[in-house]
Amino acid sequence: MSDIVIRHATADDIPAIVALLADDPLGAQRESPGDLAPYRAAFERLAGDPHQHLVVAERDGRTVGTLQLTVIPGLSRRGATRSVVEAVRVHADERGSGLGTRLIEWAVGTSRREGCALVQLTSDATRVDAHRFYERLGFEASHLGFKYHL
Amino acid sequence: MSDIVIRHATADDIPAIVALLADDPLGAQRESPGDLAPYRAAFERLAGDPHQHLVVAERDGRTVGTLQLTVIPGLSRRGATRSVVEAVRVHADERGSGLGTRLIEWAVGTSRREGCALVQLTSDATRVDAHRFYERLGFEASHLGFKYHL
Repeated sequence: MSDIVIRHATADDIPAIVALLADDPLGAQRESPGDLAPYRAAFERLAGDPHQHLVVAERDGRTVGTLQLTVIPGLSRRGATRSVVEAVRVHADERGSGLGTRLIEWAVGTSRREGCALVQLTSDATRVDAHRFYERLGFEASHLGFKYHL
Repeated sequence: MSDIVIRHATADDIPAIVALLADDPLGAQRESPGDLAPYRAAFERLAGDPHQHLVVAERDGRTVGTLQLTVIPGLSRRGATRSVVEAVRVHADERGSGLGTRLIEWAVGTSRREGCALVQLTSDATRVDAHRFYERLGFEASHLGFKYHL
């Protein structure tokens, strides 16, 4: 297999990112790949924000992965900046290929370069394989993640 | 007791916020109220970011609570914007007074006004009372929260 390239997403990547988001047991119920308008509007909100990194992973010009990294300055932990990883997806054909590891390593490396002291993410309690994956990469499941739907 | 005022923090609030962050079983090990320089630098990083809301709660001119709310646009969940609550603290004298509820209600209301579809937070697995508190307010502990220290 040829090399993976991880790069910042452009508006042209929106259809491929949404396809990845929807190709997932939870995402299938939450996404609307047939109506890209809300995603295009969201991309505009993201694109102007220097604390946002929305990236895609490509292999042979094909989009095979994505994640979003947000850099959050803060006062707690002696003024520590932290980062939050969201919306990690790996194409079904690429699972087990090490691409998920490459994506998370990219997020950790970028967080380090941005001066973060901490990388954090939440994973749905039903995603047991994902939990093992993050623990293998050195993440600690030290917290509960609470959500409130508006 | 007189009314609570919740307002955006200014640089003058830094000592009181740090005192609140440090007056906590976990915070006591992580904060340095005797050296405010890293907090002042962090406040500068926060202050210029329109997606950040660092607030204090005051009663009779005294700072009795704080939290940080970050608004995060994103593509997943049909382009949903979400918010993340961090660094919630209530002064020891005010615990049980309903101030924590007021702070979280402020965060939820602000998230709604900012067009968020979701409010999320993580809470250390050892903070069992906090978990009951968030569940009473309508949050669901649907996720595990992973941290990676850099």
